[in-house]
Amino acid sequence: MGQRLDTDVVVVGAGLAGLIAARALGAAGSHAVVLEARDRVGGRVLNHDLGNGDVVELGGEWIGPAQLRINKLVAELGLEIFPTYNEGENLLDLHGRVKRYTGEIPPLPPAALVDLGQSQLRFDRMAKQVPLEAPWAAGRAERWDEETFATWVRRNTRTASARFFWEVFSEAVFAAEPQDFSLLYALAYTHSGGGVNSLIGVRNAAQQDRVVGGTQRIAQALAESLADNVRVATPVRRITQDEHGVTVVADALEVRARRAIVSIPPVLAGRISYEPVLPARRDLLTQKMPAGSVIKINVIYDEPFWRAEGLSGQVAGDRSPIRFTFDNSPPSGSPGVIVCFLEGAQARVFGRLDAAERRRAVLASLSGYFGKRAGKPVDFVEQDWSAEEWTRGCYGAHMAPGVLTQFGPVLREPIGRIHWAGTETASVWSGYMDGALQSGERAAAEVLAAS
Amino acid sequence: MGQRLDTDVVVVGAGLAGLIAARALGAAGSHAVVLEARDRVGGRVLNHDLGNGDVVELGGEWIGPAQLRINKLVAELGLEIFPTYNEGENLLDLHGRVKRYTGEIPPLPPAALVDLGQSQLRFDRMAKQVPLEAPWAAGRAERWDEETFATWVRRNTRTASARFFWEVFSEAVFAAEPQDFSLLYALAYTHSGGGVNSLIGVRNAAQQDRVVGGTQRIAQALAESLADNVRVATPVRRITQDEHGVTVVADALEVRARRAIVSIPPVLAGRISYEPVLPARRDLLTQKMPAGSVIKINVIYDEPFWRAEGLSGQVAGDRSPIRFTFDNSPPSGSPGVIVCFLEGAQARVFGRLDAAERRRAVLASLSGYFGKRAGKPVDFVEQDWSAEEWTRGCYGAHMAPGVLTQFGPVLREPIGRIHWAGTETASVWSGYMDGALQSGERAAAEVLAAS
Repeated sequence: MGQRLDTDVVVVGAGLAGLIAARALGAAGSHAVVLEARDRVGGRVLNHDLGNGDVVELGGEWIGPAQLRINKLVAELGLEIFPTYNEGENLLDLHGRVKRYTGEIPPLPPAALVDLGQSQLRFDRMAKQVPLEAPWAAGRAERWDEETFATWVRRNTRTASARFFWEVFSEAVFAAEPQDFSLLYALAYTHSGGGVNSLIGVRNAAQQDRVVGGTQRIAQALAESLADNVRVATPVRRITQDEHGVTVVADALEVRARRAIVSIPPVLAGRISYEPVLPARRDLLTQKMPAGSVIKINVIYDEPFWRAEGLSGQVAGDRSPIRFTFDNSPPSGSPGVIVCFLEGAQARVFGRLDAAERRRAVLASLSGYFGKRAGKPVDFVEQDWSAEEWTRGCYGAHMAPGVLTQFGPVLREPIGRIHWAGTETASVWSGYMDGALQSGERAAAEVLAAS
Repeated sequence: MGQRLDTDVVVVGAGLAGLIAARALGAAGSHAVVLEARDRVGGRVLNHDLGNGDVVELGGEWIGPAQLRINKLVAELGLEIFPTYNEGENLLDLHGRVKRYTGEIPPLPPAALVDLGQSQLRFDRMAKQVPLEAPWAAGRAERWDEETFATWVRRNTRTASARFFWEVFSEAVFAAEPQDFSLLYALAYTHSGGGVNSLIGVRNAAQQDRVVGGTQRIAQALAESLADNVRVATPVRRITQDEHGVTVVADALEVRARRAIVSIPPVLAGRISYEPVLPARRDLLTQKMPAGSVIKINVIYDEPFWRAEGLSGQVAGDRSPIRFTFDNSPPSGSPGVIVCFLEGAQARVFGRLDAAERRRAVLASLSGYFGKRAGKPVDFVEQDWSAEEWTRGCYGAHMAPGVLTQFGPVLREPIGRIHWAGTETASVWSGYMDGALQSGERAAAEVLAAS
């Protein structure tokens, strides 16, 4: 047995949700200890040092103007934001034909644009009918939760281009394929993030801004304010509760508290041992919220050569396996960085290759979009979040048909003295850093109200 | 640290799969130690003592004549089988109208019979096109795995009765709702069990026979033959592997072996800690194989009073929450036992009630079918498998859309020195005791071939 501690509240997981919960508790006069399995804070938010003080993010990165909580926090912590590079022309590269364009509307044939526009209008309209706090209460919830997003797309589009758009939308937003999640889940998540354009766009949308120094600074600053109440390298193995409190058992540390907030992804929450065992409904929920699949890749060049060619660095295309890219260079514009992703099925297929083969495939794809120079980076940094023991998938979890209607009401339901946080439990910007903050604040408020 | 043992192979889980694997290894001259979390063997197979030497099963119970492995094993172990009580008339009780009938075909209106017959013919025909060892290789696999069984049923039936049949089929066979799993999964599972009638029927089907003394005797007899090589009350927490072997760490026991066979349900396999961590594809598979939901209920009466009324004890009906029943009396016919189930959504809804409320609801349902006398049992024995820490759901796991095509090939893929067994990994009678045996024999053969 290791050290023993007594505190008011024990928080499991030092991602943004757990850290903000601990801070909110502290501000209300309640003492919290945060236990983190990794040797670092931030969870799915992680900086990578490029040298010279520059960083790129390997995890959560962009923030949008409608994400009020994260913007407010960033400002409070004295961090600065800067706009995602969004100048020059974007590329659309489909079926071997390359088109340059500016603005929000891709240069698709009119039939495809109409098809896409109509399906998006329909989808956004349905999304607004899904109550954020209770998607299972939507008027057509049962029907929408009976089918996959894939079958909805098949029925509601007529052109290959529109289908390709929705497939890339699934992968980019959910890190999953359209058949992996239900229509209702797609609608709820989309409503939670303000609609399709809000989720996928740059200007006035979720990819608008970045944080100088990288988003992990947010977590680090929060952790600094909590001082030695954050214990890293302390994986939690067991949580017992009785009528007076909880005992959280980690490697070499045992913490006794009145209540616990578990702020880790659902699948990991399900892997802790609980005494008494969790009720069936809660355990089944964690069985039914698998994580998405994403390998995030930053490709570093000596300079952002595409800018000189009048390009934004933003591509949408079908030169497998990379389907879209962003310019991810530091604020100074040097070095040049292209960020791209292997998501959903691509993450699974290319995740099986060895690193050299995967790099070759990714660079071939980028060379197709940006020319030969894209094939000769100075560095290549990848992060497969599914391979991380203490994450096991990104960006967030998703729900197959039947899950939201049958298990949704359990998502935020405390089990005795155990409360649940993490971006998957958010009703606004679920799956995003902003949602993580909402969830941590909500869990802290629950604990304070119960004390 | 507890005791340390050295052996050839360590088996995790003393269900039928693990026990038969250990026996097969022993027969080939390889020494195996089986570690079991519970204080008993059998896993999802569990007897309940009624007194006087009579038992009923709280878990896996029936065996069919096409289940060659389990029949052979039962005979080898000197156990006897007896036929499921199948005399007298069955009841069909829909929309408040009760009909008695004999034979396989329920007395539905002709339009419903035609509708049901056509949809079943279509479904069985498709099921046969799914290769048992590789469902993902079916010609239409992608398309069939894109949608739920629910949307297929909606498109392929026109009558409420046919839809009700497929809903009960889902619950009875998969312990899940039609929206919980993909069409491809439904087809693969059905093919693996010989077709729809083979899965749901009594004569010449999966419910034909029972084992005198209860099916847990099979597990107990296997365990006796393995003597002190089966360690109960020994939950495994961690499995490490290196180039020479594996170390399996349980509470108070550490076993070193050349290889490991993990023969527990996928979700529980995912909750063990592995070093090195399992690759993304394997971890994601365990994230994507949730267990079904079932509360199995044996209601005990002083005698099987329905028999005297010319009834078989078999009901199909819509007097919620019980949708079908069987006569589950011991071979002597005394006491009288009706077995029934809360499955899928019913298990989740009624699982939240307290035991007295649930009992009231179940007895009200049975009284509706069998008359007042059914409301006054001498005993009421229930088992909620989802609430069991070391099972977390029954009968087996299921797969949502997209899982079988994307993750199916990983199901039986050894990860280094770790092999996978359990009925979920079977290609024949997956989800059944017979499938558990196939999986254990297959895993043992893998280990022997690799040694």
